[in-house]
Amino acid sequence: MTKRDLIALEEWGLGEVEDLLGLAARVKRGEVRGGLEGKLLAAVFLDPSLRTRASMEAAMFLHGGHAIVLEPGKGSWAWETEKGVVMDGATVEHIAEAAPVLGRYADVIGLRSFPRGGDWATARRDAIIRDFAAYCGKPVVNLESARRHPCQELADALTLRERLGDPRGRRFVLSWAWHPKQLPTAVPASAALAAARNGMDVVIARPPGYDLDPDDLAAVRGLAAATGGSVAVTDDLDDALQGAAAVYPKSWGALDLFGNPEADLARRAPHRDWRMTAARLGAMDRGVVLHCLPVRRNVEIDDAVLDSPQSAVVDEAENRLHVQRALLLTLLGAA
Amino acid sequence: MTKRDLIALEEWGLGEVEDLLGLAARVKRGEVRGGLEGKLLAAVFLDPSLRTRASMEAAMFLHGGHAIVLEPGKGSWAWETEKGVVMDGATVEHIAEAAPVLGRYADVIGLRSFPRGGDWATARRDAIIRDFAAYCGKPVVNLESARRHPCQELADALTLRERLGDPRGRRFVLSWAWHPKQLPTAVPASAALAAARNGMDVVIARPPGYDLDPDDLAAVRGLAAATGGSVAVTDDLDDALQGAAAVYPKSWGALDLFGNPEADLARRAPHRDWRMTAARLGAMDRGVVLHCLPVRRNVEIDDAVLDSPQSAVVDEAENRLHVQRALLLTLLGAA
Amino acid sequence: MTKRDLIALEEWGLGEVEDLLGLAARVKRGEVRGGLEGKLLAAVFLDPSLRTRASMEAAMFLHGGHAIVLEPGKGSWAWETEKGVVMDGATVEHIAEAAPVLGRYADVIGLRSFPRGGDWATARRDAIIRDFAAYCGKPVVNLESARRHPCQELADALTLRERLGDPRGRRFVLSWAWHPKQLPTAVPASAALAAARNGMDVVIARPPGYDLDPDDLAAVRGLAAATGGSVAVTDDLDDALQGAAAVYPKSWGALDLFGNPEADLARRAPHRDWRMTAARLGAMDRGVVLHCLPVRRNVEIDDAVLDSPQSAVVDEAENRLHVQRALLLTLLGAA
Repeated sequence: MTKRDLIALEEWGLGEVEDLLGLAARVKRGEVRGGLEGKLLAAVFLDPSLRTRASMEAAMFLHGGHAIVLEPGKGSWAWETEKGVVMDGATVEHIAEAAPVLGRYADVIGLRSFPRGGDWATARRDAIIRDFAAYCGKPVVNLESARRHPCQELADALTLRERLGDPRGRRFVLSWAWHPKQLPTAVPASAALAAARNGMDVVIARPPGYDLDPDDLAAVRGLAAATGGSVAVTDDLDDALQGAAAVYPKSWGALDLFGNPEADLARRAPHRDWRMTAARLGAMDRGVVLHCLPVRRNVEIDDAVLDSPQSAVVDEAENRLHVQRALLLTLLGAA
Repeated sequence: MTKRDLIALEEWGLGEVEDLLGLAARVKRGEVRGGLEGKLLAAVFLDPSLRTRASMEAAMFLHGGHAIVLEPGKGSWAWETEKGVVMDGATVEHIAEAAPVLGRYADVIGLRSFPRGGDWATARRDAIIRDFAAYCGKPVVNLESARRHPCQELADALTLRERLGDPRGRRFVLSWAWHPKQLPTAVPASAALAAARNGMDVVIARPPGYDLDPDDLAAVRGLAAATGGSVAVTDDLDDALQGAAAVYPKSWGALDLFGNPEADLARRAPHRDWRMTAARLGAMDRGVVLHCLPVRRNVEIDDAVLDSPQSAVVDEAENRLHVQRALLLTLLGAA
Repeated sequence: MTKRDLIALEEWGLGEVEDLLGLAARVKRGEVRGGLEGKLLAAVFLDPSLRTRASMEAAMFLHGGHAIVLEPGKGSWAWETEKGVVMDGATVEHIAEAAPVLGRYADVIGLRSFPRGGDWATARRDAIIRDFAAYCGKPVVNLESARRHPCQELADALTLRERLGDPRGRRFVLSWAWHPKQLPTAVPASAALAAARNGMDVVIARPPGYDLDPDDLAAVRGLAAATGGSVAVTDDLDDALQGAAAVYPKSWGALDLFGNPEADLARRAPHRDWRMTAARLGAMDRGVVLHCLPVRRNVEIDDAVLDSPQSAVVDEAENRLHVQRALLLTLLGAA
């Protein structure tokens, strides 16, 4: 079997991802049984998880396999990733050992590792997941890194297709939202990529100072160019939502203030009204509302929006299960 | 499949519970194989567990299913349960999302949520488990809430039947015990309900100031009326134990001092002799000793009692497994 | 089924262990399928684990069984082990209850319990695992106690055989190493036992003040006498390594300073050069390098050594899986 990693979905071919999404739809309809008998996933969470953990365990079990869930140090203990370091400090294990060993126990490894302070120039390299994959002899799946959340991206793409039928040429608004904490950009970047993959007209609405990483924006533009979609950036949220087909309200931090939560809190203080309200929902064209969850009710999205039939957030979370089943079958299955 | 929750056992019909206990006995004798193939339980522990977790995982596996165990925030992180709240504080996820999402991943959800301070008037509503069940599309099983521990109650009822043969008309003493901590009333209420369900003469022996919730006492009386049992309350433990068939020594806090551990400690200070001793065991009629575990040795129950053949605490813990197997088969099984 | 514990491997017969290692080799070659259908392991970690947990879960699953992993109190909560104590303090459960209850839920129990301060005279009794096994009705496997790590010992023995062919009469150096923390002696004692079991000439190289427990050394000598090996102790590491076939660089604390980490740090301060370097590797006879992992790179062993083909540490970690599969099949299998 060839080792195949999934770190950033745009590193897979367009056709490969279409095959994945097609398989996910068949899996969801109950048309695919078994396929992972005797197979093991090691799902390593350096950061907390509820949905990802539960859906990964479910995915393996439903096809005859098993997920081993590991939480090294419950977040307090970090693997060493630097090469050549003298390990006489706090880190007790280098991924040069942890990655190949887990690759001996399991058939596929999932790894969640959020960014850990420092500066964005360092964090954006996604060194932990990329080095881990290089050291590991088995496929590695990104369960959310500093830059990407590809399983969420697959679920977003599938949910948009389910709700909109043919999403091509429809408007998708990635809407920055206020939040009490400075959050990473992995999910918003992945959401924009999902919409671009669907051939949608992607509008990123954010206040000044909250641009995504230029390389991430370039990746979104690249996908849109291939699918017939488009990409625009605006600071006028209400204009963007007029007649839009879908909205993804999501907070993220300013990259030039990365690792500096107080400064980010001050910058975003004037923008508490960047919140998805019933009035904004009404301005859309029967707009579908997406969110990766967990969502801060009445902070990112109002109750009236989340409790409306236009909210697809629970379907979207369910689709995490189905796209992951398809992914694991693709990486490990006999087919 | 109809959604069926188990939050308080007395909300199920008498005959339904008899069927459950009958199935548990057959399961224990090894007469029931399989029945949960491809089925998933999500067991969510907002509070710690050893026995419940292990027995739930075992129950699912022994019949072909699988339990996903989730411990959100390891107790430090609470789900939001209030409706309409602006979530800009410590809670990061509302059960309005968590409950339906877990219902998409699993076929049944178990939830443990102990009371979290505040006052008893609020805690006694058992809002977390009841709201969770309302938001969730799949059956929800109470793995111990502020008010009830129905799986323990089933195990208590089965163990009494095993040890006593026909427990009807025999005396069951729920004996308050001193303990270094202020404990909830879910287990003592459930234990009294189990004995009343068995048609026993239930005597609740406790010092002044340690009455159970009036509604819980009414529920015990209601069950006793239906089964031919009776209910009495006394502050004379030694009198209650004379010739009794079973005793359940268990500590609980004063409900008017709920959330006020120092005041409770002061009130119960004179009652350290409310402890199950060998002399008290000797006064019973070959008395059976029950406890939900974990038990504080030589504080709640003396070594000589726990190490005697009259102690049924290990059998009782084993029966947790069998009643839960029966419950899961009933909720999820094809039969 | 007869209850059979594995607490210290030398308590099993020589032939029994040879059978185990032979079965492990066959398991590794894929010649043994199934055998644990419907069987449950309860793996209890009073101390953290990555490798042991993952390999135990994998072992059970690969043969049709399931591992329940329990981490009581995440290390903050200790089971009571003293007999007769009045439990009105920090401990909430006595192993007199926990052990038999887990024995009712599972077919075999694994227990990890590192030493917890105090003095060595107490810790060396390994009371927690031995009392737990006495209270439990099912086989108990030591997943690392104060004195022994028998699963690691089995993996070490198998790895040496794989790398050296016939290890009899070859020199094995257990090399003390500097480390920022005061570590237990379970792994070095078990490593020396593994080499002695293989009939090797065991040289224990350590600075003055770092002798192993006399009873452990006697156990190594006893095995060596039975297999035609030998045992020597030296403080000249470089001399020991000249022409040696295998080295196991590993730190451990001084037993007379047990539970006194500051004093140990001071004693070992002059010995930071007790480190496995490329030069020392070059002095060996194509020497094989072992370590239980996790390893502190460039503190215990240099990058150049760990990254050379002579390092067997990843194979050794993989062999944990295979020896544990063989062990579980032996303890639980129908064969």
